[in-house]
Amino acid sequence: MITQKEIILPPYARGMHIITKIIEDQLDPLPATALVNLFIKHTSASITINENADPDVITDFVNYINRLIPDDTPYFRHIDEGTDDMPSHIKSSLLGSSITIPVKFGKLNLGMWQGIFLCEHRNNAGNRVIVATIYS
Amino acid sequence: MITQKEIILPPYARGMHIITKIIEDQLDPLPATALVNLFIKHTSASITINENADPDVITDFVNYINRLIPDDTPYFRHIDEGTDDMPSHIKSSLLGSSITIPVKFGKLNLGMWQGIFLCEHRNNAGNRVIVATIYS
Amino acid sequence: MITQKEIILPPYARGMHIITKIIEDQLDPLPATALVNLFIKHTSASITINENADPDVITDFVNYINRLIPDDTPYFRHIDEGTDDMPSHIKSSLLGSSITIPVKFGKLNLGMWQGIFLCEHRNNAGNRVIVATIYS
Repeated sequence: MITQKEIILPPYARGMHIITKIIEDQLDPLPATALVNLFIKHTSASITINENADPDVITDFVNYINRLIPDDTPYFRHIDEGTDDMPSHIKSSLLGSSITIPVKFGKLNLGMWQGIFLCEHRNNAGNRVIVATIYS
Repeated sequence: MITQKEIILPPYARGMHIITKIIEDQLDPLPATALVNLFIKHTSASITINENADPDVITDFVNYINRLIPDDTPYFRHIDEGTDDMPSHIKSSLLGSSITIPVKFGKLNLGMWQGIFLCEHRNNAGNRVIVATIYS
Repeated sequence: MITQKEIILPPYARGMHIITKIIEDQLDPLPATALVNLFIKHTSASITINENADPDVITDFVNYINRLIPDDTPYFRHIDEGTDDMPSHIKSSLLGSSITIPVKFGKLNLGMWQGIFLCEHRNNAGNRVIVATIYS
């Protein structure tokens, strides 16, 4: 059996934001055994899994990724929408557009320290749409 | 229900190539509600989702990734097949070997600006095989 | 039909380790046509697909990724568990927490040169848990 649901996230600031609870609430109730795919319909934001406990992880991660792909990269041509745009597209492919998570006993079977994060790469983004597909 | 199909892509030049239409044509007709996994059977090419409209995005992306993992990296040992080989393997893991896309109303439910890209990392590649698996 | 199985890997040294055979043995027998998702329940190890033949690929890959995200990155704050910890979290998101592989004729339909790798990013890790979900 397959079901699908669109989850609309409100605008977030540039950075990395834990959304585990939002996703869990939107998907409740889940089948006992399943697989959930979360697909983000955008090329300048990502969805990823990372450490859910220490806010310093978010700070370090965002600082790292912004230095790895700097806004002021001199050879970028795709700059009409701002210098944060092309770095966002690269980040979206490196971090990925979807994640797949197993479901066990009706709960997302994440590790103890795993959380789901929205990575918002743009300075001034709007809503973001995630398509959740649940197989059981 | 699960179906599988191998899609054989002709040789492409090193770079990033939009293949959304090829994939859609090969998968037609799709079930109303489904999930499609596209898996590339190679370790020196990737499949990713990125911005489908501005060719400058492709130029910038390829320039970026080639500078991030340069062909002339001095400490690489795996160079018997050419200096583009080891960078290709690293790019393949960073960008990923498969993507998963939801299907809605019988169409790939991509965002307005999302396209499917083959990233060909080798200088002189042959055909590339993609396995499409459709769950419905 | 969906089945799930937890695969517990013993502790591995920091680096990249081929686990194709272990995974195949654990999943045997597989359905004729299926899709397998392998999800790692940790934020400081990754699972990826790469070249399965030349040990130099592993050496080069690990050297590259350790230079890309160095342990001694001066601005990292999340260092209480060691300087290898924050780099591990970043590597886990860049390389990804899960891979999805098609099954054909009851075998993982990997390319000739593709293998499954555990990337252990920590210096002194314990067991690692992978959740395998098989759809058929």
